[in-house]
Amino acid sequence: MDELLTPLTQGSRRALSRAITLIESTRADHRERAVALLASLPDGHALRIGMSGTPGVGKSTFIETFGTMLTEQGLKVAVLAVDPSSTRSGGSILGDKTRMETLSRNPKAFIRPSPSRAELGGVARRTREAIRLCEAAGFDLILIETVGVGQSETLVAEMADLFVLLLAPAGGDELQGVKRGIMEMADIILVNKADGDLLPTARRTVADYAGALRLLRKRPQDPDGFPKALPVSAVAGTGLQEAWDDMQALTAWRREYGHFEATRARQAQHWFLAEVRTGLLARLETPEARDRLEQLGRDVAAGDTVPGAAAKQMLDWLKT
Amino acid sequence: MDELLTPLTQGSRRALSRAITLIESTRADHRERAVALLASLPDGHALRIGMSGTPGVGKSTFIETFGTMLTEQGLKVAVLAVDPSSTRSGGSILGDKTRMETLSRNPKAFIRPSPSRAELGGVARRTREAIRLCEAAGFDLILIETVGVGQSETLVAEMADLFVLLLAPAGGDELQGVKRGIMEMADIILVNKADGDLLPTARRTVADYAGALRLLRKRPQDPDGFPKALPVSAVAGTGLQEAWDDMQALTAWRREYGHFEATRARQAQHWFLAEVRTGLLARLETPEARDRLEQLGRDVAAGDTVPGAAAKQMLDWLKT
Repeated sequence: MDELLTPLTQGSRRALSRAITLIESTRADHRERAVALLASLPDGHALRIGMSGTPGVGKSTFIETFGTMLTEQGLKVAVLAVDPSSTRSGGSILGDKTRMETLSRNPKAFIRPSPSRAELGGVARRTREAIRLCEAAGFDLILIETVGVGQSETLVAEMADLFVLLLAPAGGDELQGVKRGIMEMADIILVNKADGDLLPTARRTVADYAGALRLLRKRPQDPDGFPKALPVSAVAGTGLQEAWDDMQALTAWRREYGHFEATRARQAQHWFLAEVRTGLLARLETPEARDRLEQLGRDVAAGDTVPGAAAKQMLDWLKT
Repeated sequence: MDELLTPLTQGSRRALSRAITLIESTRADHRERAVALLASLPDGHALRIGMSGTPGVGKSTFIETFGTMLTEQGLKVAVLAVDPSSTRSGGSILGDKTRMETLSRNPKAFIRPSPSRAELGGVARRTREAIRLCEAAGFDLILIETVGVGQSETLVAEMADLFVLLLAPAGGDELQGVKRGIMEMADIILVNKADGDLLPTARRTVADYAGALRLLRKRPQDPDGFPKALPVSAVAGTGLQEAWDDMQALTAWRREYGHFEATRARQAQHWFLAEVRTGLLARLETPEARDRLEQLGRDVAAGDTVPGAAAKQMLDWLKT
């Protein structure tokens, strides 16, 4: 039994941190230990909330205020960041703990930044495994946060029970800028900064998004009134309880009508297939395979062989 | 020796058609025969020109006029279409031969539509193999035509010696609509419909694109003055010779300074790696592998096992 297992399931944040570092490692012996640890984890009960929002929308402040509110209600909150841009630059400059200073010092909260220098596929696996670790450590709510770019939202939606989109008050033109695919993923749209001078604009934006959501195809996993748009102010702390009430109501409905478990089952199948593909392609990453690929690549470039024939040679070699 | 080889290398269009049908087949015995045939092909000398243009820009008319002009100069011209949308709809409604009626009856020309019901990866392999067949059949110029959407342009650029972008006369705003990535691929931008009332607009559009091209990073494979923008009229037949002169000048320069061969070598390496990846993932497509994936997927969905453990089981099974 792994030495991390007992302290982890007792809720030790230190053990949780070390376990996440373990699953992020690419060293073969670490990986083997990580797989064994993951297989021995007890089931958790956490709600997984995916959250996306473009930079400047106030996502850190929202998570800080929202997370603090939930911990005050007795919940244990984990925040996992999925930021492919930070993987490119080798980590965010300020770091997530600086962004969420109050929450990071809260004993009922746990914040883990995006790992640096990982590929999107690696980020996906690492995040799913980190979710399992947080659940085993007794967290009630896991916020999986991503920036509003490209594939990372799809990835987060594929591992979350709910998907929340945090947007800024905006004119009708800017509303068009939210991609249809992202809108279709959202269960709840929160229009932040609904305070002070921006309150009327925020209310209008909520109405605009509500209208846009009504135009989307009705999904089986949505009760009446969902997906919905709501105004919030992370700074003033308004609308957060209402948003949480809606998240809980939606979750309760989905649990009751079997959609919650069905979605998790579908997601598990999706990740199973993704891991098989990743694992198969990983056979090209061993030192021996790389050497051989490089050598055959040189032959192909020199015109000594054609791509198809060289590929066949490589595939035959991989079979042995 | 394959019975198609001799007639193919003697330039039989019927043999060429049958050989392309052979490489498009997914039947295992056909595939084996195709690989053997491809390995026995003599080298060709054709220039490969990738061409993209959004619907309505007059691409078919351009290829018809341009191709006819080149055949009149004694060249043998093959046109291969790469249209992922036709693969989705199961073939274009009218078909490429209807689109290019004159050229399709020209004995010095050969037109082959996009295969229906193939995935983009399959289209890539099929098109590269069709290029090799056309070259072995003695064609001098191979136009690889694609529609202006998504990944198909990147794919075509990766198999062409030159990439030509055919655009319509447009205002400054529409110019912004051409994605930067597509602009960066272009060696020559042709603004079509430079005739009649549209001539002044077309000239202004050429100047606009020329300005935009000057703002792009200088590439080592470009001599002075390239990439460039030119006005053409497929309907009036004007500008086509100038465009062809430029294509030849650019090709001659690239040959002289080693860029032509270097690009082909890099492309061959790219396709070698792509084929290795595709071939590896094809191991998941056998009936036995599909059965096993389905069964493990059910276990994962039922919660009897976790995605990582099921993936490991599948990968171990694939190894045996």
